[in-house]
Amino acid sequence: MIRITFPDGAVREYQKGITALEIAKSISEGLARKVLAASVNGQVWDATRPIEDDSALKLLTWDDADGKSTFWHSSAHLMAEAVESLFPGAKFWVGPAIDKGFYYDIDLGGRQITEEDLAKLEKKMNELVKQNSSYVRKSIPKAEALAYFTEKGDEYKLDLIGGLNDGEITFYTQGAFTDLCRGPHIPSTGPIKAIKLTNIAGAYWKNDSNNKMLTRIYGVTFPSQKELDEYLAMLEEAKKRDHRKLGKELGIFTMDDDIGPGLPLWMPNGTIIIEELEKLAKETEQAAGYKRVVTPHIAKENLYLTSGHLPYYQDGMFPPMELDGTKYYLKAMNCPHHHKIFSAEPRSYKDMPLRLAEYGTCYRYEQSGELFGLMRVRCLHMNDAHIYCSREQFAAEFRAVNDMYIKYFKIFGIEKYVMRLSLHDPAKLGQKYINEPELWLETEDMVRKVLIESNIPYVEVPGEGAFYGPKIDVQIWSTIGREFTLATNQVDFAQGRRFKLEYTGADNAPATPLIIHRAPLGTHERFIGFLLEHYAGKFPTWLAPLQVKILPISDKFMDYANTLLQSLKNADIRAEVDDRNEKIGKKIRDTELMKVPYMFVVGEKEVNENKVAVRRQGKGDLGSMDIDTIINQLKHEIATRSSDQE
Amino acid sequence: MIRITFPDGAVREYQKGITALEIAKSISEGLARKVLAASVNGQVWDATRPIEDDSALKLLTWDDADGKSTFWHSSAHLMAEAVESLFPGAKFWVGPAIDKGFYYDIDLGGRQITEEDLAKLEKKMNELVKQNSSYVRKSIPKAEALAYFTEKGDEYKLDLIGGLNDGEITFYTQGAFTDLCRGPHIPSTGPIKAIKLTNIAGAYWKNDSNNKMLTRIYGVTFPSQKELDEYLAMLEEAKKRDHRKLGKELGIFTMDDDIGPGLPLWMPNGTIIIEELEKLAKETEQAAGYKRVVTPHIAKENLYLTSGHLPYYQDGMFPPMELDGTKYYLKAMNCPHHHKIFSAEPRSYKDMPLRLAEYGTCYRYEQSGELFGLMRVRCLHMNDAHIYCSREQFAAEFRAVNDMYIKYFKIFGIEKYVMRLSLHDPAKLGQKYINEPELWLETEDMVRKVLIESNIPYVEVPGEGAFYGPKIDVQIWSTIGREFTLATNQVDFAQGRRFKLEYTGADNAPATPLIIHRAPLGTHERFIGFLLEHYAGKFPTWLAPLQVKILPISDKFMDYANTLLQSLKNADIRAEVDDRNEKIGKKIRDTELMKVPYMFVVGEKEVNENKVAVRRQGKGDLGSMDIDTIINQLKHEIATRSSDQE
Repeated sequence: MIRITFPDGAVREYQKGITALEIAKSISEGLARKVLAASVNGQVWDATRPIEDDSALKLLTWDDADGKSTFWHSSAHLMAEAVESLFPGAKFWVGPAIDKGFYYDIDLGGRQITEEDLAKLEKKMNELVKQNSSYVRKSIPKAEALAYFTEKGDEYKLDLIGGLNDGEITFYTQGAFTDLCRGPHIPSTGPIKAIKLTNIAGAYWKNDSNNKMLTRIYGVTFPSQKELDEYLAMLEEAKKRDHRKLGKELGIFTMDDDIGPGLPLWMPNGTIIIEELEKLAKETEQAAGYKRVVTPHIAKENLYLTSGHLPYYQDGMFPPMELDGTKYYLKAMNCPHHHKIFSAEPRSYKDMPLRLAEYGTCYRYEQSGELFGLMRVRCLHMNDAHIYCSREQFAAEFRAVNDMYIKYFKIFGIEKYVMRLSLHDPAKLGQKYINEPELWLETEDMVRKVLIESNIPYVEVPGEGAFYGPKIDVQIWSTIGREFTLATNQVDFAQGRRFKLEYTGADNAPATPLIIHRAPLGTHERFIGFLLEHYAGKFPTWLAPLQVKILPISDKFMDYANTLLQSLKNADIRAEVDDRNEKIGKKIRDTELMKVPYMFVVGEKEVNENKVAVRRQGKGDLGSMDIDTIINQLKHEIATRSSDQE
Repeated sequence: MIRITFPDGAVREYQKGITALEIAKSISEGLARKVLAASVNGQVWDATRPIEDDSALKLLTWDDADGKSTFWHSSAHLMAEAVESLFPGAKFWVGPAIDKGFYYDIDLGGRQITEEDLAKLEKKMNELVKQNSSYVRKSIPKAEALAYFTEKGDEYKLDLIGGLNDGEITFYTQGAFTDLCRGPHIPSTGPIKAIKLTNIAGAYWKNDSNNKMLTRIYGVTFPSQKELDEYLAMLEEAKKRDHRKLGKELGIFTMDDDIGPGLPLWMPNGTIIIEELEKLAKETEQAAGYKRVVTPHIAKENLYLTSGHLPYYQDGMFPPMELDGTKYYLKAMNCPHHHKIFSAEPRSYKDMPLRLAEYGTCYRYEQSGELFGLMRVRCLHMNDAHIYCSREQFAAEFRAVNDMYIKYFKIFGIEKYVMRLSLHDPAKLGQKYINEPELWLETEDMVRKVLIESNIPYVEVPGEGAFYGPKIDVQIWSTIGREFTLATNQVDFAQGRRFKLEYTGADNAPATPLIIHRAPLGTHERFIGFLLEHYAGKFPTWLAPLQVKILPISDKFMDYANTLLQSLKNADIRAEVDDRNEKIGKKIRDTELMKVPYMFVVGEKEVNENKVAVRRQGKGDLGSMDIDTIINQLKHEIATRSSDQE
């Protein structure tokens, strides 16, 4: 008998050699149908692989990231089976699961594949699914593996096998298809209920342009047609909400060849959004006791040698400028500059916690191929701050930072979010992680407690902490369900010591502060990119570059429109008059296109009654309203940063 | 007879060979006593030099910059006479007038000069002044000049003569001292009524460290003891108000060796001032119809080749960073970036004038020896904007910019200012100046008219315009009478064309905009440096980093103090409680040192009466006041940006 420990801590005994799938069945048939793979002692296994020793077991389903990626990897094999059947002699390089779906790189022996072929492949895959073939794992001696693919004439798999040792080679077979594969796989093809092959691309073998160009087929699969339909609809919606398209249409930002890639220029409308975000951040941070600073965008090499950015982060930095015999670098992070402000004055425990905030602009080198709209740029306006505190103050400070995140999520209507808490690996203390075992455990525990007490959804990722402390990556989802990495929130034991930061404790002894790095709104670039998609460009009134457009029905009402404009401006409402000589229908349509939250239509009736006919973006006509009433309503909507469009 | 034209346009006839001094005497003896030199056809002459031809004449007195510098140059000769008498055999290199005073570089033949010697020299100079010796100009053939200084054994003057041609060599003699000198000089030593030798320094001959070190003696002189006393008092006061000293004491900014010279880090108190200034600028610019933009701090080489910064301004720029085979430069000016925003969208005459504003941070290379506190830095936060307009719109736009300057001067209590209008030189059109004779005359005339109509004090400087248009340098004086160059305001015909900027005119034809470059608040660096001196660190309440300090007389009143603090914070007033266990006298003294505008002292009486005892910086006790009354008074003082300390 072996002892199996479940995630809830329960321990049960089973026959040696039992599989995760059998254990699931022993619990319930319903559960077994959902099992895609299993985590055995932290490693992902086939659910059908016999377990020989006492183990910690977690059954993996579609709800687990590892369940999904096993599902997609098995789908890649299924696609390969279909390809082999439709393109006999095709040779296969690698076919991994990716963020959403999978691909396989294939040598079709000079044959072209078309969009129509994709439909044929999908059809074939659906047929194969009906056979519900099992994915069968088999350990193969190296000689036998070489013989198999030599006979098949597959130089790609032979190349892969060349890099493997005897004893670690496995084959997986489903139906008529056998592949060299480390696995794991789902039990059988049956659960792959919905299939979409999305794209064909070229990919050089081993990513080297001197090598042969292989055909890469992308696909995505789901356990139900409903999920696939929802996903495809989300993609369609995401296309409409593409931040690059909206960013241009709404005059948010522009790129220019003479400035350089990844260096957005913020147009007047984008700058209004930037300033509203900064105002929100400054108000929030002031209320939370932060102090603001302004630091240069460059510093001497020596600063980054002290911080360790050089040489460890050099690839992510711009190259140096040599001046008066000294190298200067553009800052990639604000922390070293803030540390210098900390150390510019003598500090005592009475000054702690010291919270230094700056919308600092950093420059990071990203490969030009990686640049993407506002999502991946080389110039980043960060909502940055560093909190210097004592160990005793840490938990309260960390909780306050989390509260700030949650507050922002509410303001922006971000309903789904997860914090990924990356921890240290005790085996690597002193190598990958700074050797402070107690501090690690203490802060990890404090962080975990705060997350639990604050009811924040989080996952723990062992062995992925930063060198200098535990790290929290904040993932958020837009209204259409796309995931974004917003920001990180880091605990830092190391920099304080590297920079010799000190404060005098209550006991009169010098102490080194702990540092929290935090940036709840991330960068303007990524956050505004996210917001463009999230709101489909229909910003809530407080963020909208133009809040009210006044539409006079004809020139006769221009005086009234201009008086109205002045009243709105006096109330600090961003407004314009559409003074074009156009029909009211066209004025309304054009204003809708610019996604202005409110339109005030004014004609004979409105002038006579001293009113406006109010139209709300996305809701249409709200009827006729008193000027004072609507202005007060708008002021309230803006002051409360309401995102409520009801 | 020759015809002499006076500055007011009057023309009178005089005997050929008459001198400016004689003309002055013919007008009044009082005037003649004040004449130091004369401007004859735009060149500065000795007032005693015969005028042979019809000429435009301006008599120069102490009130003219050229009058002052002639006075100081003559004072340098006077000092040399004293040096020669006390240090026989001394040899003289050059002795120019400088911004305030003069110096002379002297080879004392190995003798050391002491502070005591300066007193002796001053005494000797005062004796020589009593002799009222004339400064006598004499043209000398080159051979004769060489013979004179060869006999004297003066290799320095021989070196100077070597570079001159026969016919352009003049000697000046006063009393026992003769010097090779281009002149001009004042009529005689008599007017040099007040003398102060201020400093001794070493200076390499010809500024080359391989050469001999000469002794440089600095001095300053005035036509009256009163003026000298005022000047020395001003220097004393300026020392107390030194922005570097105050900047450190008040926590405004810091410098750090690891960041680099000329790169200030703005501490929390300095950042509050920055943010108040930006708020003022943004409000002002928004009301004036500006739109804000945000642009990166770097751009490709190509942008600066188009703008002409490369190669013409390369020495003032940071060296390039080479990335993906392209050179990137830190921006030294924001204009090229703004031009790119102009051209990012199609523009029509309806969009004009387009006013793009940004507190853009620029980086300029200044020699490390030139760097000075906040006054000369390498990182500049500029109150920048570019106005794109048609010719028809230009005058109104330019006037509005000037009005903005004047508005700012009022807010900051800047009572003395002058605009230096630099014009083109028609002889150099197409070389030094863009070849648009009509546009030059038209815009210069418009600019001049606006300055006159707005009653702005200005001086015209022919031949000093920028390449691309007339330039206005704005000079301001601090309360203690020191002069600062605040900002420039430039008209630009050239960049629009270089960047192919276009808008569609009302006639449907493409047109190139005129551009106004303007930065009324200059840079944060220089302006805050100026304000520190101007206010002696005692900022008006709206700008003060801390506006109110609450001083409880003892711990018993802490609750009351904290309630008060909350009321102040609710009213957006920056306040703190002094919660130290110190005597009230010490609390008041420490708060005075930090130059906080208001202190609220609270004790038994105040708690019982629900009041505060108000102390105003520089005015002392204002007596007991209701909390609501003083808060409302403060809110009003802050909202109106009052600088009134009465």
